[in-house]
Amino acid sequence: MKKGKISDVFGKPLNVVNVGLESMAEAVKDQDVPTFQVDWQPPMEGVKHLRITKSGINIDEANEEVVKRIKQARPTLVGMGVAKDVIPGMHDRMILHAGPPITWERMCGPMKGAVMGALVYEGIAENEEAAEKIAASGGVEFSPCHHHNAVGPMAGIFSPSMPVFIIENTTFGNKAYCTQNEGLGKVLRYGGMGPEIYKRLKWMEAVLYPTLQRAIDSMPDGIDVKALIAQALHMGDEGHNRNRAGTSLFLRAIGPALARTNKDNEVLAKVIEFIDKNDHFFLNLTMPAGKAALEPAEGVEGSSILTVMARNGTDFGIRLSSMPDRWFVAPAGEVKGLYFPGFTAEDANLDIGDSTVTETAGYGGFAMAAAPAITQFVGGTPDMAVAATLEMYEINFSEHEGFTIPVLNYRGTPLGIDVRKVMETGILPKLNTGISHKDPGIGGIGAGILRAPEKCFKDAFDAFQEKYF
Amino acid sequence: MKKGKISDVFGKPLNVVNVGLESMAEAVKDQDVPTFQVDWQPPMEGVKHLRITKSGINIDEANEEVVKRIKQARPTLVGMGVAKDVIPGMHDRMILHAGPPITWERMCGPMKGAVMGALVYEGIAENEEAAEKIAASGGVEFSPCHHHNAVGPMAGIFSPSMPVFIIENTTFGNKAYCTQNEGLGKVLRYGGMGPEIYKRLKWMEAVLYPTLQRAIDSMPDGIDVKALIAQALHMGDEGHNRNRAGTSLFLRAIGPALARTNKDNEVLAKVIEFIDKNDHFFLNLTMPAGKAALEPAEGVEGSSILTVMARNGTDFGIRLSSMPDRWFVAPAGEVKGLYFPGFTAEDANLDIGDSTVTETAGYGGFAMAAAPAITQFVGGTPDMAVAATLEMYEINFSEHEGFTIPVLNYRGTPLGIDVRKVMETGILPKLNTGISHKDPGIGGIGAGILRAPEKCFKDAFDAFQEKYF
Repeated sequence: MKKGKISDVFGKPLNVVNVGLESMAEAVKDQDVPTFQVDWQPPMEGVKHLRITKSGINIDEANEEVVKRIKQARPTLVGMGVAKDVIPGMHDRMILHAGPPITWERMCGPMKGAVMGALVYEGIAENEEAAEKIAASGGVEFSPCHHHNAVGPMAGIFSPSMPVFIIENTTFGNKAYCTQNEGLGKVLRYGGMGPEIYKRLKWMEAVLYPTLQRAIDSMPDGIDVKALIAQALHMGDEGHNRNRAGTSLFLRAIGPALARTNKDNEVLAKVIEFIDKNDHFFLNLTMPAGKAALEPAEGVEGSSILTVMARNGTDFGIRLSSMPDRWFVAPAGEVKGLYFPGFTAEDANLDIGDSTVTETAGYGGFAMAAAPAITQFVGGTPDMAVAATLEMYEINFSEHEGFTIPVLNYRGTPLGIDVRKVMETGILPKLNTGISHKDPGIGGIGAGILRAPEKCFKDAFDAFQEKYF
Repeated sequence: MKKGKISDVFGKPLNVVNVGLESMAEAVKDQDVPTFQVDWQPPMEGVKHLRITKSGINIDEANEEVVKRIKQARPTLVGMGVAKDVIPGMHDRMILHAGPPITWERMCGPMKGAVMGALVYEGIAENEEAAEKIAASGGVEFSPCHHHNAVGPMAGIFSPSMPVFIIENTTFGNKAYCTQNEGLGKVLRYGGMGPEIYKRLKWMEAVLYPTLQRAIDSMPDGIDVKALIAQALHMGDEGHNRNRAGTSLFLRAIGPALARTNKDNEVLAKVIEFIDKNDHFFLNLTMPAGKAALEPAEGVEGSSILTVMARNGTDFGIRLSSMPDRWFVAPAGEVKGLYFPGFTAEDANLDIGDSTVTETAGYGGFAMAAAPAITQFVGGTPDMAVAATLEMYEINFSEHEGFTIPVLNYRGTPLGIDVRKVMETGILPKLNTGISHKDPGIGGIGAGILRAPEKCFKDAFDAFQEKYF
């Protein structure tokens, strides 16, 4: 057997995360290697393990049903359409937003910015000042994306004319919707406003959308988004803040259809360039894929599993499968992250967006072990990425055999956040996320990591106990 | 701190590779977890560490120069051409092959098959029987790819009419060449023969080649293959037997130019489909990129680093930077691998191909830690993939900062196989490779892993001592 210092083996200074066996950490510490523990708290006090409800429902069996439905899902990109035409309940004066319900007054800066920008883009307001007055005076109706089978990244703003992807869960026949991804930086979904943003959105409506729509419509089976996510997890993505592989695979999948339905070489070139320059493009497919997978799992009596987890930049909200119409909310958290040049934590808005649908559906931050290179974007170290996934197994009810992590010997991703387990272990869901500037009109300023707030889990657990015990 | 069995942390039965600290393996063994050691042998007897040659050359300094040149390389796809027009020394009756020089009589079955197939494809022979007679009677001249700034996967056959990629190392101005990748299974480079193979090769010559060539010619800076390889290593590729990410990134990079130079939508669709259906397409770019990077590092007096490592299916050959014209050969090895349905190890030819240029240039099998999912193709486990890279640091002179491995905390890949270190440690280069059927005409039957043979390293080391000490 070869002997040596562990740092010699890796050839560089190490930071060791200890996730289990204490003697291993001691052996490493003996070599002056810095070690840090998985961030873990003792179980919350007074939590008892709930098994059978007063009406006799076996909670584990209910949860099995929930994860079975999620695993059976087959989210498929079947078409595109304009929001007001295809999204249930959407109308000419409705704006959808991320997270739990919220009034204009309580909206954070970037959400207000995105709303104002959307009203100018729509032509409902002549400029941002007019838009603010319309928004503040009840001139438009606000509604959460999640109330309309939709999810939106960051501010999550859908306005009536925006083109959307239509994802069908072909196993159950339900549909989910998401906008097209604009890119990073000064973009509407991060709260950006201004002519260059409206121009880009108009191009996405007039050029990108019809080009993609023609291609998708020409594909008899659509595009199997679940299969692309599964492959992307073997290619360094986690499906939330790293989508370079997914974006690449999407371009491969749609490429021949784009060519066959091509009407103008230069348009096609620009469309491919737009997607190629935006490694987050695929996020707006992983998110509705998650939503499409989760909705059939709603409404299972006795289940303690989350089917919704979303933030509006002011509040963080969750919903349980067994109480699908009830939001449990808490103040949104502060993100620890990496900032683009010129910005600091001082500029950051609180946690925002529906993109936590990815973690809820068993990938995203929970699959960070599959995506060590994500730490270049959201901060932390590759070791931390592996530790994050390992920790999330503790609070998830199951593992998703359809989404495997090679470096963990093809173990399935953590699936099914169990509010019982969160309360028993004291481990809160660990998320990665983009960061918006807190003021309207500026846009994205970085990305980072945080945990979901405890309060909404505690409230959901209390309500669960009240309903079933 | 949480306590528990390490297998509980990972949730599944573990096989632990021990790479260093003995006490860690003991702690794991105590829990009845199967452990296995990195495959390692004691140093070969009588090997002394060589530092300064009799003429006063510091070997480490010479080696630094070699790896510096390799690291400085910028392999760029600058164009395409027909082999007989662009490859130095190529002519109408020349066939290039993989590995060290070999006569028709000593060629293995798949190389003979590929030669016969190429002669039929060229129209030099009417059928395979006629081709065999021409080949056996000196009707064509055989020459190693490596003698013509070229590299070819598996049999590595270049015939005069074949289109080739032209890679320029823009730092040094030298060029390297490789054919277009045909796909897996019954294909010429694996020794396949038959009408479907010639038809595919003709389509690649008449349709794929001009389509790609027009696109590449329209890109003023070409395509930076080094940058694509570096990204692909963050996306689960290692650049030899896993090129799914690289193939995806190549399609993204060339996509807009393909659109702009499009003359026929259906042709463009077929070209994209051909590449999309072949995750090995990018191999034929990683290989000449390696060759282009290595050639300027040839001819450094006193260097003990390999600049060539290649197999012809009969012999395994290496060349040192300090003796760039001299091959050191040994019998090619047997591959341990996974076989396509219907085939077994009984059917396998010995190790073959120039693709070990990837390991020589600091990626491929040496970067397997970046590509845990490759084990689905070549066998083994993700742990083994990590262990393979860690072991290869022991016999490489340097680490390639341009090619980093996220899961090893962005450590550079092992670079610069040092024949001194191979002899001192007894560790032979660990390679992954495709497997050809041993008979002519059949093609690829699987993929696997093996080590380079000891003899050629021993001979090279002896020659190095003889020349310099």
